[in-house]
Amino acid sequence: MAETAVLRMKMIDQVLKTIEGRKQQSVAALSEFLSIPSVSTKPDHRADMLKCATWVSDQLKFGGFDVSIMQTGGHPAVVAKNKHQAGRPTVLIYGHYDVQPVEPLNLWTTPPFTPTVRNNAIYARGAADDKGQVWCHIESLLAWQAHGGPAVNITLLIEGEEEIGSPNLGSFVSKNRDALKADIAVVSDTNQFGPGVPAITYGLRGLAYMEVTLTAANRDLHSGLFGGTVANPANELCKLLGSLHDDDGRVMIDGFYDYVVPLTPKERSDWAALPYDEKAYAQELNVPKIFGEKGYSTLERRWARPTCDINGLTSGWQGPGAKTVLPCVASAKVSMRLVPNQDPEKIVENFEKTLRARCPDNVRLEIHCHSHTPAVLVPTDGKAIQLAAESIEIGFGKKPVMMREGGSIPVVMMFKKQLGVDTLLLGFGLEDDNVHAPNEKFDLDALHSGTRTAAALYGKLKDL
Amino acid sequence: MAETAVLRMKMIDQVLKTIEGRKQQSVAALSEFLSIPSVSTKPDHRADMLKCATWVSDQLKFGGFDVSIMQTGGHPAVVAKNKHQAGRPTVLIYGHYDVQPVEPLNLWTTPPFTPTVRNNAIYARGAADDKGQVWCHIESLLAWQAHGGPAVNITLLIEGEEEIGSPNLGSFVSKNRDALKADIAVVSDTNQFGPGVPAITYGLRGLAYMEVTLTAANRDLHSGLFGGTVANPANELCKLLGSLHDDDGRVMIDGFYDYVVPLTPKERSDWAALPYDEKAYAQELNVPKIFGEKGYSTLERRWARPTCDINGLTSGWQGPGAKTVLPCVASAKVSMRLVPNQDPEKIVENFEKTLRARCPDNVRLEIHCHSHTPAVLVPTDGKAIQLAAESIEIGFGKKPVMMREGGSIPVVMMFKKQLGVDTLLLGFGLEDDNVHAPNEKFDLDALHSGTRTAAALYGKLKDL
Repeated sequence: MAETAVLRMKMIDQVLKTIEGRKQQSVAALSEFLSIPSVSTKPDHRADMLKCATWVSDQLKFGGFDVSIMQTGGHPAVVAKNKHQAGRPTVLIYGHYDVQPVEPLNLWTTPPFTPTVRNNAIYARGAADDKGQVWCHIESLLAWQAHGGPAVNITLLIEGEEEIGSPNLGSFVSKNRDALKADIAVVSDTNQFGPGVPAITYGLRGLAYMEVTLTAANRDLHSGLFGGTVANPANELCKLLGSLHDDDGRVMIDGFYDYVVPLTPKERSDWAALPYDEKAYAQELNVPKIFGEKGYSTLERRWARPTCDINGLTSGWQGPGAKTVLPCVASAKVSMRLVPNQDPEKIVENFEKTLRARCPDNVRLEIHCHSHTPAVLVPTDGKAIQLAAESIEIGFGKKPVMMREGGSIPVVMMFKKQLGVDTLLLGFGLEDDNVHAPNEKFDLDALHSGTRTAAALYGKLKDL
Repeated sequence: MAETAVLRMKMIDQVLKTIEGRKQQSVAALSEFLSIPSVSTKPDHRADMLKCATWVSDQLKFGGFDVSIMQTGGHPAVVAKNKHQAGRPTVLIYGHYDVQPVEPLNLWTTPPFTPTVRNNAIYARGAADDKGQVWCHIESLLAWQAHGGPAVNITLLIEGEEEIGSPNLGSFVSKNRDALKADIAVVSDTNQFGPGVPAITYGLRGLAYMEVTLTAANRDLHSGLFGGTVANPANELCKLLGSLHDDDGRVMIDGFYDYVVPLTPKERSDWAALPYDEKAYAQELNVPKIFGEKGYSTLERRWARPTCDINGLTSGWQGPGAKTVLPCVASAKVSMRLVPNQDPEKIVENFEKTLRARCPDNVRLEIHCHSHTPAVLVPTDGKAIQLAAESIEIGFGKKPVMMREGGSIPVVMMFKKQLGVDTLLLGFGLEDDNVHAPNEKFDLDALHSGTRTAAALYGKLKDL
């Protein structure tokens, strides 16, 4: 080990000791953070959003950061920097302080904004998504502050609109390109591979979210008096959407698989070696069987194969009992998870073309694209990933596994496109954290190991 | 014309004169009837139901009838009889005093329970369905009363649960078989063929109403983190229900057409000769085109061909915008309109068998039958229909056309099964009466011609 590396490790050890001594204090601070009901989608929480941004800002100011609460056109974003020094790598840390709605309230064991510790976890809305993970980074920086500050230039961008699709983030990043310039970005808004199996996520699926609407008559009709005389949009919708898969789970949209990057033999063997129990998975979800595109393992389908899923169906009578209505409209939300190198725009076009070609002329077809974002694949052989892996090993006491994830994090592609910067996805959550659901939690072990990992990272990245 | 027939016609003419003189009074009485908000489906209208039954009872008592308001287990039924005389035919008149809900209220030009006359029609909830048509019969009997009473034995059964599917009528009829015994039944709860084209309806379609539910996981899942790993019930539901029709609109349920009675050449030519404008029909409904089972005209498909229609679809996210949910449940209401001689129980069984055979084992399938009733076909060459046709000619000044209808009126089959009696379907409504919709109306000409028709009928049926 070179002399500087030894010195750096000594410094990291000092910071970790400080973190150890502040464990209680860290949970108390996170509790404060979690008690602010920063539900971004609800207009009546507007004041809470500002309160939460201010709280984040206050913590970072206390840690010696230069902080601004910046207007975005929607909820404000917090941008904070330590004193940047020439010659040091710059790290852009992204997270979000907004949370999902909490309904249904009656399913929460303790109220969603009264953070409660039990079973070695802290329960509250936003515990894992994303306040707890954001707090790992802030707490690590506060600990570094006690030792003269982190070894790298830090820019934090903590936004307030992630849970509503970050509608203003793109233009905000574009307008503040210089201020956000960085050598690497870090996002902690994903999961570990499993309990005690920390991970670096190097790939994400993309998304194209469509709405399909079929209409026929100008009003709902009596199914006895009119049934058989004009097309039923609900019948036709089922036929149309029923044509999107074959029996082997393959997506039957023209050209859908044309540019899909095949899995490498190494990925397939690496993933097959991961501690993954398909039977336990099926049992936990209580599904009759595991199902998906033929020829791929469950992890392969989840991480590296594209899908097409109906997310919502709406037509006619939905209440209890019977109503003999011939609906005049039927609609569906349909989204496709994309993988490298599917082009979202091309996929949206193919989706529309395929449906138009298959749709009979007895109904009117409308197709709308809500949003689309491409898949992301970060090179796994870079210096940043190596330093992140070493940091995780320090933080968790275990080497991380390399994984992909099936979800989409549009900010990763946004950073790549707008700032030309790759993102390290270091997720500290667990699959049973009940994210977006009642009784969301964040394990205190994850909080502690995540904070340690972040602390190590802001030492190690000096060598980027 | 035999002497008795001449005398009978004279008597009918007297009654028609009385009706002519009471036109204003008749509309005023119907207005009272319509002002009572007898919405059977709403528990808070319970008192209105009794009030309405009492109002009907009072009218009939005034007309010299022996009336009972009878308990049914649900809303009461009004049963009334004139003094039955041996040797006279007995006519069972069925109608209902309950009405559909009125929402959305803002679409009504005048309030639904403030009956208003405009454009030669009376506007109110229940105007055509069924209070106005019931009133035609009561008013005709009041007019007969001024001339010594009708020439036949009359039993009226006016129930209060038709709009909620007559849940207690079957057992009520069964318990009161002797009291309801009759030679012929009369129901006015359908339409004329068109404005100025009175009709006798001699056929109705039956109905089998099903609910289909597919489930997979034990909770809604994130479509990114889980998509591709387990079956999506919404995808599978579309595939399953999409298999129920071929491209020519034929129903693809095993054995569906096995016992269907083909149309006779006479029916096909008679119906082809009816004044029916398919283009105007398409235009009024604003559909891209007329559509249905290939090889049949629109009237044939509506009146004499079975259908299978999705009446409702429910799954996942139905609000505005996007939610990336992999739903754990997807369900549909599906009903089949049946024709002679499809056996509803066999059809329900075939529906279930077909779906079970086609459903993959990656989801759980539940099928529930809400209700079923067979189609009805009344012989068109009987004496009663001939007398009814003569009555309509007197009432409307025009010979009626013989038609079928696509809807179902379960009471017709109930009377046949329980009382062994055929039903005359004399409908006075018009297609634009906005039945079950805002601005329901009943034409004053229909009210008057319908009352005249009923008056003639209760003279003519003496010859049954």
